[in-house]
Amino acid sequence: MRLPPRSELEAIAVRAGAIALGHFGHARPERKADRTLVTAADREVEAALVAELGRLLPDATIIGEEGAVRAGRGPYRLALDPVDGTAAFVAGLPTWCVCIGVLERDRPVAGVVHAPALRETYSASDGGAFLNGEPLPPLGAGPGGGDRFGDRFILAHARAHARHHLSYPGKVRSLGSTAYHVALVARGMAEAALVAQPRIWDLAAPGAVLEAVGGRYEYLGGGLVDLDELADGRRGRDYVLAGSPEAIAALRPLVGRRA
Amino acid sequence: MRLPPRSELEAIAVRAGAIALGHFGHARPERKADRTLVTAADREVEAALVAELGRLLPDATIIGEEGAVRAGRGPYRLALDPVDGTAAFVAGLPTWCVCIGVLERDRPVAGVVHAPALRETYSASDGGAFLNGEPLPPLGAGPGGGDRFGDRFILAHARAHARHHLSYPGKVRSLGSTAYHVALVARGMAEAALVAQPRIWDLAAPGAVLEAVGGRYEYLGGGLVDLDELADGRRGRDYVLAGSPEAIAALRPLVGRRA
Repeated sequence: MRLPPRSELEAIAVRAGAIALGHFGHARPERKADRTLVTAADREVEAALVAELGRLLPDATIIGEEGAVRAGRGPYRLALDPVDGTAAFVAGLPTWCVCIGVLERDRPVAGVVHAPALRETYSASDGGAFLNGEPLPPLGAGPGGGDRFGDRFILAHARAHARHHLSYPGKVRSLGSTAYHVALVARGMAEAALVAQPRIWDLAAPGAVLEAVGGRYEYLGGGLVDLDELADGRRGRDYVLAGSPEAIAALRPLVGRRA
Repeated sequence: MRLPPRSELEAIAVRAGAIALGHFGHARPERKADRTLVTAADREVEAALVAELGRLLPDATIIGEEGAVRAGRGPYRLALDPVDGTAAFVAGLPTWCVCIGVLERDRPVAGVVHAPALRETYSASDGGAFLNGEPLPPLGAGPGGGDRFGDRFILAHARAHARHHLSYPGKVRSLGSTAYHVALVARGMAEAALVAQPRIWDLAAPGAVLEAVGGRYEYLGGGLVDLDELADGRRGRDYVLAGSPEAIAALRPLVGRRA
């Protein structure tokens, strides 16, 4: 079994995104047992992703945020988040994403983070990362390096004010979607992201883009994030930092924990 | 002199937004004396706004973020922010807005907050508020009231982590534009916004939308914001809360100041 071309994964994400877009602006949320939100859009999009990707990668194991599970054989595992940022989606904020992550054992080797309402599609495969089909440069290789925009910022989860003391000297933004946050780090726009204790479907798709530009995930308390440990859908054991190794090392001492 | 119809103000904002959109993705910033950013887009958009609005309201006083000043007579004053969220614009974040505020003495009586990259246009005149031409309901009158989306959130400026202790129990998002924050409060999406010490062009346009749905601006330390005091372009004397009177009263005790 070979990894499908990036164009096929992108096309599947775009078709799934169109389904979600049809619900955007009038989605009715329900609460799941973990207190997060779900809508009909999440369920329909996940079903569409599972159907299409199941045909494309018939031997792959599949896990999805809304309960999709298919035991497979072979090296590939698909981690799907039909709508990352469901609360944003329900509220009407355009920063939600459809996420397809392809892992080879613990490594995200391909992925798509597609933000239909923003018309931004981040993707990765075979070591290359792309935004709307244009290659993304390695982190730090853009014009002027990490401070090329003059105004430094990081991205943080929406409860960072309650969980952390942030002594970061720049701006802190919070846009409503973990996958979008990580994608913006991979794009070299934000210096790093502080992610709430994530599950594999939050990390896999943008992680493929992030790794392709030289970035990675580390736990706030230290250590690389092993996605294989999260394969059953459990939450990560700690908050996660996403960025280049240098950006993560610089940010970690600036993130304190609140009692 | 009569207030121009909302459709004319919207059309001017849309034309100006198209100019800015032409620069979006490859804007080169410079730093102004106050350390904020400016680009050619800010200057071109402000010139276009001044030219068109100057014809439409020939007697109005005009003040713009990028230095436009025209002394007028008559009751109307225009406060213009060609690109609110310039740092977001420069970075490539789509949450920037073109802002036209029309004040009658201290009151914002009409305004447009147009987010070209999001295709969202908030407007107000004659006491009505609109998003993309659809009327916005009064604050608290939407289905289910303030908590209709299940997940409560406020919007905060990007240095809130350094300036405030926030004990708000919901989520805190920060999207990159003051005017967009206030527009989302007027839309009933966010409960309130905590705004960094603003200038009149940050507040006027979204303030017209906010007032039309029953919201208002108050200083964090208490007291209504008198836009007449800010008419010369000075910064507000304190942080500002935007929301319904009830939401502001509920939020104020949850915002502490850091030393």
